[in-house]
Amino acid sequence: MSAFRREIIVRFEHCDPAGIMFYPRFFALVNEITEDWFAALGASFKALHVEQRKGVPTVKLDAEFVRPVRIGDRLAQSLAVAHLGGASCQLLHEARVAGQIVARFDHTIVYADLASMKAERWPHDLRAAMAAYEEPA
Amino acid sequence: MSAFRREIIVRFEHCDPAGIMFYPRFFALVNEITEDWFAALGASFKALHVEQRKGVPTVKLDAEFVRPVRIGDRLAQSLAVAHLGGASCQLLHEARVAGQIVARFDHTIVYADLASMKAERWPHDLRAAMAAYEEPA
Amino acid sequence: MSAFRREIIVRFEHCDPAGIMFYPRFFALVNEITEDWFAALGASFKALHVEQRKGVPTVKLDAEFVRPVRIGDRLAQSLAVAHLGGASCQLLHEARVAGQIVARFDHTIVYADLASMKAERWPHDLRAAMAAYEEPA
Amino acid sequence: MSAFRREIIVRFEHCDPAGIMFYPRFFALVNEITEDWFAALGASFKALHVEQRKGVPTVKLDAEFVRPVRIGDRLAQSLAVAHLGGASCQLLHEARVAGQIVARFDHTIVYADLASMKAERWPHDLRAAMAAYEEPA
Repeated sequence: MSAFRREIIVRFEHCDPAGIMFYPRFFALVNEITEDWFAALGASFKALHVEQRKGVPTVKLDAEFVRPVRIGDRLAQSLAVAHLGGASCQLLHEARVAGQIVARFDHTIVYADLASMKAERWPHDLRAAMAAYEEPA
Repeated sequence: MSAFRREIIVRFEHCDPAGIMFYPRFFALVNEITEDWFAALGASFKALHVEQRKGVPTVKLDAEFVRPVRIGDRLAQSLAVAHLGGASCQLLHEARVAGQIVARFDHTIVYADLASMKAERWPHDLRAAMAAYEEPA
Repeated sequence: MSAFRREIIVRFEHCDPAGIMFYPRFFALVNEITEDWFAALGASFKALHVEQRKGVPTVKLDAEFVRPVRIGDRLAQSLAVAHLGGASCQLLHEARVAGQIVARFDHTIVYADLASMKAERWPHDLRAAMAAYEEPA
Repeated sequence: MSAFRREIIVRFEHCDPAGIMFYPRFFALVNEITEDWFAALGASFKALHVEQRKGVPTVKLDAEFVRPVRIGDRLAQSLAVAHLGGASCQLLHEARVAGQIVARFDHTIVYADLASMKAERWPHDLRAAMAAYEEPA
């Protein structure tokens, strides 16, 4: 299956006094596409966090910022599953402007119980839905 | 020389509906200690960005989140120079709560002209001040 | 003419450890709809800030938070012009969830030169486009 | 008693591509001094939110932005109690740079149970501590 994709226009609030995207806010966009992907999988962050009291904390996140991103840029984000473990998931994110890579993120999340903060195995149906986004090696 | 250090109390605004630090805001704290370090080096972000029209954009940032961080935690951040290049600098950040590592960041910045967004060599005095924070290998 | 409108789903990042929208982030959404409105008027924040070096700083903003807003809520925002001055504009914002008002904002912006930070008269075409959103008294 | 005060240096992250403080982040600073005041009153946001499951949601917040604030400015914030009700509290905030007012906030919070989101009467000891910051009329 193809990667999960979305597109946004870079906003005023994403940019810093240097006129380019402030990197902590780029990570907020990484979280946004992850949130959108879970909603598309049928596991909205509301259902996960509020109803089921589960979360998907980030345990590892390697970022490479290749080109500056500016206000008004049309940012195309994609996310694909690189490795799906029993309780974890490694996601590869790419962000492009006008077809050119501007940033890459190698992002590992785990499925965890919010009360104990212990990792748990992905529910079967959720894991099957996630697997559809696995990239061929 | 020892690492550059600061301590903060984790605030309400840093935490998410899961009750733990929201990782994009952890990156904001990485930026804050970097900003504080430059101020201590005699190169405040105001002087750099507004007066000299230079910046220190992040080109690489690898993060590892080891333990959840919660509101009210006393977070001890440290930063040391792992490698100081002609135009770049690799910083190692650690964050601890009650003596235990909660997160690590391997962070590479470059010195750049804000108009051209091209890398430039560190000014001599600034580079000498940064070198004082190099960790012995 | 009718008000300018948009709809968003309340995200994880908007909410705080109390599980409701953190009010500083509600103001970010006020800024977002204002930014979207200017883009619809043909004056994107990129064109304004980067190309023309003008801004629309907020000088007054009165907020009333009527009901708590939660993650996953579908938030309908609207904006209308209450008063259009020579260099200022008073906007009335409403935010609703499921048809019920959750917040109101009385918001005054001015047109200003970014170098001098002095107010200037709205350009004629921009002012005419804004006037189309005036509410009948 | 005198107002509650703190001072911060305006950071890179507070400022926008126009080079001045982005107003949603000014509201975050209003929340920060409120959080610091509650900690000084012996009711930290951790104790309130996590241990007692109470909150102090903002129901009204009127802001006036008088002068632009820039990166590196030393911002002096103060907060005083204008009116202390049974379940609510009206706070007056001022922010100054170099002795000159840059912003004012008229801010009403209520004491509320986080589960029911209903207002409750301030606990006696907390209310007594708050009353010490009442301004003479």
